[in-house]
Amino acid sequence: MWKPDRSAPMPLYRQIVEHIERGITYAQLPPGSVLPSERKLAEQLGVNRSTVVQAYEELRASGLVESTVGSGTRVSLTKWGVSPLHTPNWRLYTEGGTFLPNLPFMRRIREVTRYDASIINMASGELSSDLFPNRIVSRILREESFDEHLGYDDPQGYLPLRQALVNKLLQDQNLITSETSMLITSGSQQSLYLITQCLLSPGDAVAIEDPSYTYSLPMFQSAGLRIFRLPVHADGIDPEDIITLYKNHRIRMVFLNPNYQNPTGTTLSDVKKKRVLAIAADLRIPIVEDDPFSLTDFRGSIPTSLKSLDKDGIVLYIGSLSKTAASGLRIGWLVAPQSVVDRLSDARQQMDFGLSIIAQWTAERLLASEEFDKHIKELRQSLQQKQLLMLEALTHTLQDRISFVPPVGGLNVWCKINHAIDDGKLLEEAIKRGVVFVPGSVYGSEPGHVRLSYAKPRPEEIAIGISAFAEALERS
Amino acid sequence: MWKPDRSAPMPLYRQIVEHIERGITYAQLPPGSVLPSERKLAEQLGVNRSTVVQAYEELRASGLVESTVGSGTRVSLTKWGVSPLHTPNWRLYTEGGTFLPNLPFMRRIREVTRYDASIINMASGELSSDLFPNRIVSRILREESFDEHLGYDDPQGYLPLRQALVNKLLQDQNLITSETSMLITSGSQQSLYLITQCLLSPGDAVAIEDPSYTYSLPMFQSAGLRIFRLPVHADGIDPEDIITLYKNHRIRMVFLNPNYQNPTGTTLSDVKKKRVLAIAADLRIPIVEDDPFSLTDFRGSIPTSLKSLDKDGIVLYIGSLSKTAASGLRIGWLVAPQSVVDRLSDARQQMDFGLSIIAQWTAERLLASEEFDKHIKELRQSLQQKQLLMLEALTHTLQDRISFVPPVGGLNVWCKINHAIDDGKLLEEAIKRGVVFVPGSVYGSEPGHVRLSYAKPRPEEIAIGISAFAEALERS
Repeated sequence: MWKPDRSAPMPLYRQIVEHIERGITYAQLPPGSVLPSERKLAEQLGVNRSTVVQAYEELRASGLVESTVGSGTRVSLTKWGVSPLHTPNWRLYTEGGTFLPNLPFMRRIREVTRYDASIINMASGELSSDLFPNRIVSRILREESFDEHLGYDDPQGYLPLRQALVNKLLQDQNLITSETSMLITSGSQQSLYLITQCLLSPGDAVAIEDPSYTYSLPMFQSAGLRIFRLPVHADGIDPEDIITLYKNHRIRMVFLNPNYQNPTGTTLSDVKKKRVLAIAADLRIPIVEDDPFSLTDFRGSIPTSLKSLDKDGIVLYIGSLSKTAASGLRIGWLVAPQSVVDRLSDARQQMDFGLSIIAQWTAERLLASEEFDKHIKELRQSLQQKQLLMLEALTHTLQDRISFVPPVGGLNVWCKINHAIDDGKLLEEAIKRGVVFVPGSVYGSEPGHVRLSYAKPRPEEIAIGISAFAEALERS
Repeated sequence: MWKPDRSAPMPLYRQIVEHIERGITYAQLPPGSVLPSERKLAEQLGVNRSTVVQAYEELRASGLVESTVGSGTRVSLTKWGVSPLHTPNWRLYTEGGTFLPNLPFMRRIREVTRYDASIINMASGELSSDLFPNRIVSRILREESFDEHLGYDDPQGYLPLRQALVNKLLQDQNLITSETSMLITSGSQQSLYLITQCLLSPGDAVAIEDPSYTYSLPMFQSAGLRIFRLPVHADGIDPEDIITLYKNHRIRMVFLNPNYQNPTGTTLSDVKKKRVLAIAADLRIPIVEDDPFSLTDFRGSIPTSLKSLDKDGIVLYIGSLSKTAASGLRIGWLVAPQSVVDRLSDARQQMDFGLSIIAQWTAERLLASEEFDKHIKELRQSLQQKQLLMLEALTHTLQDRISFVPPVGGLNVWCKINHAIDDGKLLEEAIKRGVVFVPGSVYGSEPGHVRLSYAKPRPEEIAIGISAFAEALERS
């Protein structure tokens, strides 16, 4: 995002004029394209609205842009010597293809948090930056000498990283696998994308938890899948519901997040996990196990994964460093039968030719370092501490008005609001008061829920954020 | 890829037995799955065939695997206590989805080069590792302190990298753009993938050069596009052919590689470039300009890009560091009107949430370093030198039997064989003699061509490789 340079001798408004002129001249802003409103551009650029007003006035004076009441400011269709007849109708192209845009609530949250650093962010599922292993990563880059081959990597990913993960999964989670059954991906997101794109076809029926993080992923709709729901109760899904969905809709795959489920925080018992596997084996349908949070367990007793109990090759297991180290590393993994890994690696080559060797090398060094286990321990403590602050604030300000079951891991508290509310109104009222959260409907849930995350806010922000949220709730 | 550990006290065959046992126990090799042939597994693991024979014998003795004449060795269906009735029919799943497997010739070449390091590789479009900026990258990681935010990045990519690229494109190629019109991608591959997936719909007609690198990309077929061809002559395509294709097939997009075209090496003249733009403007269809090779120009006079001449916002420009620095960095970029960049960033978030910040930071530091321009200069000299060795060897051994026009940039010599040949037979004969190349038919070309690349082989391998190729040609 371009921003004017406050230290430059040229006035800010003039810098904005020249920036827009460049955009027009080099056809990044083709004739007829709509410029942001004055208010919005001012917000984006971090300048006063009057500065943008002045810039737009100058552009109008030169005839480069035209403003009409009701339809805003547009790049002139005639003045610049370029006829719009020559520019492709980009709208037609950008509305084609199979990718649906993100959900409006998620877009709104992204917009607000992108341009306002002061807002207290209880919407993000991302760790606050002080929880990232910044120092370890800087140390690795500085001290450990990088001399890996800089060419195309193995389609399954950097071998030493796969080996390090095989060891970690065994040690931490008693999950036995091998490097040939593993694919390194750009976070869980890419694992899910590969599975929905390559193993399923448009029209296929799949089961997901209700509520579920995956519901908010446009990739499921983009892939043309028909989604059926497994209601999440206080103790997670009821495995028998899988049978019903299979009988009624011939579901071809089940997506589960059995440990510290996002958003509800529930964990399936081992008995239920075994039952899920037995049912899936019986019906011969694969389970996709998304497992980003297991290592955050506050007690340090990591819950069993479906994959570690799987003896029939039914589970496709997805893990990542995003929730336990840093999302910007973009490192995730898929553990699956070899034929599946082969197929998905092949498809991934067609999409992006794999991940940067530098990122993979860094991740391998991170996992191999002695400091990593210490990092995880500290992360658990910080998260538990932040959750405690949130629970105290919730109890203090909102007792009787909400209900929740605090999970012993993960990043979120899932709250039921004890009176009828309008999701959208509540969000806007909260934004006005400087806090954001995710409305429950984003997860396909019945109305009246919110997901409050303690991952991103600083400890001292939590009570303030909750009390702003309480005020917003008062008005909704 | 797992390999037995030669320094371990356990015999190699026993390590193989245990590795396969693990695969069976943990369902990576479900009941009924086919094991590689003895010959193939020996090759993959880098052991003698007799070692694999011994391992398979032991596995058969324990009842874990069964061999039948004609259908090879399979994991037992009964013995291991797991009934295959419980395992999903993975074949059914892996054959679903919309991704086509890679072309057989490309698979064959990949297989051969993956397991035999001694083969002279004139098929790869990748630089040899001594041409990568290894020392600069190691120096950056060691000396420059990394303190970037490790969280999710801007969907368009790391801002300082976009700024560095805006500057480079201006300096080196007189291409004026801005960081808001740029998307950082995982190499050119991801730019092309995003364009074909998000801006086009199944059934759309597009024009590509004939022969063309893009023809060999299953992504075009996977996206359901109808492909029409623009024949490449000695001086590149004839722009008027675009009009004909538009009239006959309503093509919606044109994919071009105007400078040092892959595989032919041709460069469009400025007159032709301007004509292409005028026609595209008239028809209002976008041009995708793939420009990986411009910086390799042996004379250091970089040819004009279509984008630098584009005043109508018609060109989507794709660049990358793969052919001028290192493919393993996985850094590419797309320059396009903002509405297109917005759309593609949004879709990319759904696929993989963007690139690792560490890889992007390294690329930014690389581009900003003074050593980078020196690296490019040395790269040009090395490529020119290797091309010269190839041309000498070709002239020496194959005069009268082949014809070619040496390009002054890029990585390939495109040769016409002056007699009828069978692509597949020639490739196999060449493999037998220790050299690989890419058969012309991979590029959708009329038969009788080969692409010989001088990027990967070491200088001293070139004459040997060409004489092996000449022998293979003798037998075909």
